Amino acid sequence: MIRYLAITGGVGGAKLGLGLARILKGSELAFVVNTGDDFEHLGWHISPDIDTLTYTLSELANPVLGWGREDETWSFMETLEEFGGESWFRLGDRDLALHTLRTEMLRNGATLTQATAHITTQLGIEHRIYPMSDQPVRTTVNTVEGPLAFQHYFVRDRCRPSVTGFEFVGIADAQLNPKLEGLLDSLDAIIICPSNPFVSVDPLLKIPGVRQALKASPAPVIAVSPIVGGKAIKGPTAKMMRELNVPATAAEVAGHYGDLLDGFVLDEQDAALHNTLAIPTVVAQTVMVTLQDRIDLAQGTLDFAHTLNR
Amino acid sequence: MIRYLAITGGVGGAKLGLGLARILKGSELAFVVNTGDDFEHLGWHISPDIDTLTYTLSELANPVLGWGREDETWSFMETLEEFGGESWFRLGDRDLALHTLRTEMLRNGATLTQATAHITTQLGIEHRIYPMSDQPVRTTVNTVEGPLAFQHYFVRDRCRPSVTGFEFVGIADAQLNPKLEGLLDSLDAIIICPSNPFVSVDPLLKIPGVRQALKASPAPVIAVSPIVGGKAIKGPTAKMMRELNVPATAAEVAGHYGDLLDGFVLDEQDAALHNTLAIPTVVAQTVMVTLQDRIDLAQGTLDFAHTLNR
Repeated sequence: MIRYLAITGGVGGAKLGLGLARILKGSELAFVVNTGDDFEHLGWHISPDIDTLTYTLSELANPVLGWGREDETWSFMETLEEFGGESWFRLGDRDLALHTLRTEMLRNGATLTQATAHITTQLGIEHRIYPMSDQPVRTTVNTVEGPLAFQHYFVRDRCRPSVTGFEFVGIADAQLNPKLEGLLDSLDAIIICPSNPFVSVDPLLKIPGVRQALKASPAPVIAVSPIVGGKAIKGPTAKMMRELNVPATAAEVAGHYGDLLDGFVLDEQDAALHNTLAIPTVVAQTVMVTLQDRIDLAQGTLDFAHTLNR
Repeated sequence: MIRYLAITGGVGGAKLGLGLARILKGSELAFVVNTGDDFEHLGWHISPDIDTLTYTLSELANPVLGWGREDETWSFMETLEEFGGESWFRLGDRDLALHTLRTEMLRNGATLTQATAHITTQLGIEHRIYPMSDQPVRTTVNTVEGPLAFQHYFVRDRCRPSVTGFEFVGIADAQLNPKLEGLLDSLDAIIICPSNPFVSVDPLLKIPGVRQALKASPAPVIAVSPIVGGKAIKGPTAKMMRELNVPATAAEVAGHYGDLLDGFVLDEQDAALHNTLAIPTVVAQTVMVTLQDRIDLAQGTLDFAHTLNR
């Protein structure tokens, strides 16, 4: 029976996800993944966060790039550039097979959940990866230069424009993935992995009823801080916080999640915050360099969760 | 001013097309190409005959395979096969860039003519390649095993099922490419390249009004036989003729085109037929192995055409 649910966005979330997956079986752990940064590009439905977790769990991920596959070739992209085509979003030749398969399944009427299940099964992943919703939710990043579709902000413009806020287009009509509904009552822990709270986790939390449903679950909700010593290990979290005029601190992340949280995991560099938060907090090495780092943080988070069972 | 129009299908047509393009400038020669074997596959609009001519004229064609690009890699296809995806139609990584660009242009409202012009210009091709029509025409091959979409017959089933006839779905609603309409009156010759008469040339000829328009043109219409000594150099022409219970001969091809033709080019192996046809006939080496063979056949065909000016 699924007893642990991990909420993930991109690379940071997938790192802890891999640690959790090395400890817990596919029958014990499931993932719910942000789809707010999904987009339609050159005819493909691309789900960057689902793919990051998929490639990470199947050990195909490219550790240097932080996205895509390790065993990749780039003939398609080279040729598209020669044609003067859109090349800001890098699509490897092997990666394209995944996008093509998913898009073809969606075109033939499958849900994103069904397409994801097929792909992850084909790659030998034993853990279920659930898109947060089968309805489209599209993150728009509001910036001082105007609104930007998430991938335009994140990839094309490399997070340069200063952020003023976020919109999640379609969220009012989105429903939580129905696979998760029956699950929430029987969980031992819900772990918010160290992903960007604004653009990786909030899309899930802002689906109507989801925040309430997570709070109503008997399982404690624990977040692992994506901010370490005032910086984000990867991605624009700290930059966004400064632009939004909030302190780029782990405490601010905990505050952002507010009463949803039952526990918080701080990095060793932020140990000074340990007794300053209103909720139970544990200090761990959250910077994950090696596989063992991932497993150790996963184990520490699970141990912490067990002390919080409500 | 365009004075020569070459009608082409796949590989054989493109060979003579290359010879013609080496003799005549882009301002003198245009191509009209079969789109009856176009199809939608894995989300792409694929135009095999246009692509064969495009790759041939840009000298990117793979001479060993007879389709696709020479400088190709296969990571996409390998990975799609690992996923259990549809792999009977081989799509190279670089080739995919062309299909993606075309499909994206069509999705954004361009015509196939516009997409083809963009792609061929990007590849440095000076000659205009006109799809026979901007409306979809899809060849169905009727076989003793039932009807088959053209690429299923041709590629997936390797022309194995015995043919009983052909249908060109959509042809009643198709119009000849409007770029050709003004052209027909000022031509010096119309050359039907050595392509399959049933599935490469007939789709064009069966577009409403096209056969009449070609006949009405002051330019002589010359066909180069795709049948040499009772065999097709490439493709299923001879096999189809046997299955349709007609002799697999060059004379039969000339008869198939009937009163459309003003002249016919026979191969040296069929020199015995020279004085047996009702129309002016010339004998040439139509088997094109080298580039010089292509140029020589093109020159011979043009010289022959000039003797036929009506």
